[in-house]
Amino acid sequence: MKIENNLSRENITPSIKTQYRNFPMVPRVIFGSGCFSQLGDILLPMRKSSEAPFIFLVDDFFENEAFVSRVPLMFNDEIIFISADEEPKTAQVDALVNQIRENYSELPSGIIGIGGGTLLDLAKAVAILLNNKGLAEEYQGWDLVNKPALYHVGVPTISGTGAEVSRTTVLLGPDKKLGINSDYTTYDQVLLDPDFTRTVPKEQWFYTGMDCFIHCVESLTGTYLNAFSQSYGEKAMELCVEVFLEDIPEEESRDKLMMASWHGGMSIAYSQVGIAHAMSYGLSYLLGVKHGIGNCLVFLHLEEFYPEGVSLFKKMLQKHHIQLPKGICANLTQNDFDVMVNVALGLEALWENALGSGWKKIITPERLQSMYEKI
Amino acid sequence: MKIENNLSRENITPSIKTQYRNFPMVPRVIFGSGCFSQLGDILLPMRKSSEAPFIFLVDDFFENEAFVSRVPLMFNDEIIFISADEEPKTAQVDALVNQIRENYSELPSGIIGIGGGTLLDLAKAVAILLNNKGLAEEYQGWDLVNKPALYHVGVPTISGTGAEVSRTTVLLGPDKKLGINSDYTTYDQVLLDPDFTRTVPKEQWFYTGMDCFIHCVESLTGTYLNAFSQSYGEKAMELCVEVFLEDIPEEESRDKLMMASWHGGMSIAYSQVGIAHAMSYGLSYLLGVKHGIGNCLVFLHLEEFYPEGVSLFKKMLQKHHIQLPKGICANLTQNDFDVMVNVALGLEALWENALGSGWKKIITPERLQSMYEKI
Repeated sequence: MKIENNLSRENITPSIKTQYRNFPMVPRVIFGSGCFSQLGDILLPMRKSSEAPFIFLVDDFFENEAFVSRVPLMFNDEIIFISADEEPKTAQVDALVNQIRENYSELPSGIIGIGGGTLLDLAKAVAILLNNKGLAEEYQGWDLVNKPALYHVGVPTISGTGAEVSRTTVLLGPDKKLGINSDYTTYDQVLLDPDFTRTVPKEQWFYTGMDCFIHCVESLTGTYLNAFSQSYGEKAMELCVEVFLEDIPEEESRDKLMMASWHGGMSIAYSQVGIAHAMSYGLSYLLGVKHGIGNCLVFLHLEEFYPEGVSLFKKMLQKHHIQLPKGICANLTQNDFDVMVNVALGLEALWENALGSGWKKIITPERLQSMYEKI
Repeated sequence: MKIENNLSRENITPSIKTQYRNFPMVPRVIFGSGCFSQLGDILLPMRKSSEAPFIFLVDDFFENEAFVSRVPLMFNDEIIFISADEEPKTAQVDALVNQIRENYSELPSGIIGIGGGTLLDLAKAVAILLNNKGLAEEYQGWDLVNKPALYHVGVPTISGTGAEVSRTTVLLGPDKKLGINSDYTTYDQVLLDPDFTRTVPKEQWFYTGMDCFIHCVESLTGTYLNAFSQSYGEKAMELCVEVFLEDIPEEESRDKLMMASWHGGMSIAYSQVGIAHAMSYGLSYLLGVKHGIGNCLVFLHLEEFYPEGVSLFKKMLQKHHIQLPKGICANLTQNDFDVMVNVALGLEALWENALGSGWKKIITPERLQSMYEKI
């Protein structure tokens, strides 16, 4: 499997330092507890005909009647429940696209993704592939999508990844894990309803929230930082501190973590992540460790690079009684370490952001292996 | 002249409390010192034909050769310099639209507004009217625009108003001053180049920046506040404090004030302004006082409503040696006061935001007049 300069939710453009990026923002957003009830009104004017359905791709966590009754189905609209246990794959996207093409005489009016990063990324990719010929794997890379995606709507049900604002959808393909990075990837509409996050299991809440917190630490301390990214990153960081270290009411906490994810996503969209994400990607690649917890496992040991961030992180772990697994790398072979180190060092933009252009002198393969050995 | 529930840059929707607003965001943004040099690359793919020009509406402050040479003109593109000394008028929009229709065989590829709030609002309105029949005055109100505007790009050259992110363009019409509030009003592209603000005269810099600061105080202390608005408003406020009270380098200050304006605009777009803006609108209506300085004149005397905000504001005035004019209302007649009080009290949403639904018991016409008399 080929590893390119990309990683789970983040969006890396090689030319970020040579010219400013013209960044696509989500053109329409609705925020508020309970605003999911307005989704029907939002979709109605976007319906192309009674034969052109809306397809709802939904995390199967919500596969219960109470949720289904709230989805604004009309005509031949369909809900497809999908497990988020594994990362989204190009073949999975192709299968969904074929299924939808076979089941309907017309192209859908739109695709609605409801879930965490996995579902949000899948829905983006399906919307692109329904309007572009060929296979999903052909579009992995930068700006390879020729035609706009179908109208697509993102409804995050957990907060932290920033997938709701990013211009990428990262897919595991037959020979590479890489995002479909394009201006057409970004959602046309996002619905931010903090009520969805009421039912998130505590550890998942913590790890996904830490994805946002760690993004922000990496963005704010990075050499790629600019005032645009900084303003979003600082706000997201403040919100994370309120949510994870202060005793604010639960409703306020849900609202604020949803906004932290939103602003955190904007911050890294215009700058870059760093060492924790690079190393976490190595862990994911070799051991299948998921993105949120992988970031946490790594970040705990990055005090020398991110002293303030790691200090806050330790307080957050303690306050929420989170016990991170230990000894993850205890029984790895030298070959295993070589693979992880290669994967991590391949993410050059992340290291350059973290340590500047001379990063190769600072992080040798040996030093990186010793960092992994602590985990 | 009829006064409706609206004011200069702000966007008031009567139904804000009954359901959440689905808010249009600028779908594409580029930020960075010097990024104006990328405007040509941005416009190129949007050009419809060599006969369909881009029309640049530019504040005549920039009417010099150095600037003209930087505008990426091609084919029959045109720069129209416009004075920002007076607020934009519906008749001015209609005249520009007629002029453009007469001079070109095809509709323009797009309209680019370069300047402060006045130019940014004019360009939005011209882009709407070029693609919608009739006169500008017919579209003043909420959601009266039927067809999308022409592609339009906003390039703010002074920071504070938030006009670059709002969904309104406020025009003085034959019988009312009111915004064209619509989802089509929002810019398709914004270019944030802090270099433009190098040449802003100091007092204009201060008063326009204070528009942002006062927005934020009003939004953050208002009853309409939600977590979305709060996060943007708090960030904008922090940036204003850095810019106006701390000693940061000039380049950083320009960057940060531009981001403050951006976030401040987002904050009020999803909430509401308050007492300073209501009273300032009365001053503008009767005496022609401009929006930025009008806000400052009023805000100085609102300590009982906004104690922390006014305290910070006084420090900012002192630090920058700004002498506000005094005795503005000294020689007014009772009839003058009646007019101002009526105009201000007509902005019901602003008072309700500031003081809650029982605001009419708190602010009587007599009390409001006594507040004006201090100015």
